[in-house]
Amino acid sequence: MSTICIFCRIVNGELPSTKVYEDADTLAFMDIGPIIKGHALVIPKQHFDLLTKTPAEVLVRLMSVVRKIAQAQMNGLKADGVNVLNANGTAAGQQVPHLHFHVVPRFKTDGHYWNWAAKKYDSMEEMKKFAEEMKKALQAC
Amino acid sequence: MSTICIFCRIVNGELPSTKVYEDADTLAFMDIGPIIKGHALVIPKQHFDLLTKTPAEVLVRLMSVVRKIAQAQMNGLKADGVNVLNANGTAAGQQVPHLHFHVVPRFKTDGHYWNWAAKKYDSMEEMKKFAEEMKKALQAC
Repeated sequence: MSTICIFCRIVNGELPSTKVYEDADTLAFMDIGPIIKGHALVIPKQHFDLLTKTPAEVLVRLMSVVRKIAQAQMNGLKADGVNVLNANGTAAGQQVPHLHFHVVPRFKTDGHYWNWAAKKYDSMEEMKKFAEEMKKALQAC
Repeated sequence: MSTICIFCRIVNGELPSTKVYEDADTLAFMDIGPIIKGHALVIPKQHFDLLTKTPAEVLVRLMSVVRKIAQAQMNGLKADGVNVLNANGTAAGQQVPHLHFHVVPRFKTDGHYWNWAAKKYDSMEEMKKFAEEMKKALQAC
């Protein structure tokens, strides 16, 4: 628990939130700046900054709630689809350094797009080189 | 296993892919149209179209691999951050109807932005109404 982390302060009740779901380990609450109305955040109550630093047992419970919230958006908000997004590090757009998954209801007519600008590799060899670097790193884990 | 699903065909070897990680249940391979070079996809070998239809035990193993790949991007590709994204339904931008998590390495200088245009609720009451609809749906699950 970090006393300066705003999500820890939401967990311990120092800051208000509009809760959607809560259990012993996990909290889901409304994002006050929604990409699409209904956008919720799912966080572990314990403080971890990055996905890579979050223990497996915490992640299991978190993802179970992410799935529940997605279902609730489809059933309760009549969403046509759902996006799940997570940012690790400021370079990835993470604004609060407490692990969180965005769960965003999507509607056929919502007009949102994610700027999904697919790039190309210069060659198959270049792509394979990236894969090899990751495989080497996996072996060292 | 669906014979017309391109990810099932990658799993069973009918279509080529550049693999990064594979175990009995899960496959990670390179996205050939990367948002940022190094972008990988993590899929369950078994066919499920949506997160909400994926059994908990499958999701647990999948997320464990998502975490590994994120770590490999940070260690192996020297990424400054990582985005994890998942789309459910065409309204959410899902192009292949086989559950997949995008794991995208991010670099301070990559220049990418996700079009993260936060909106506002008309009122606190409106936000609470969305939360209540989801809470009702959760109770019915």
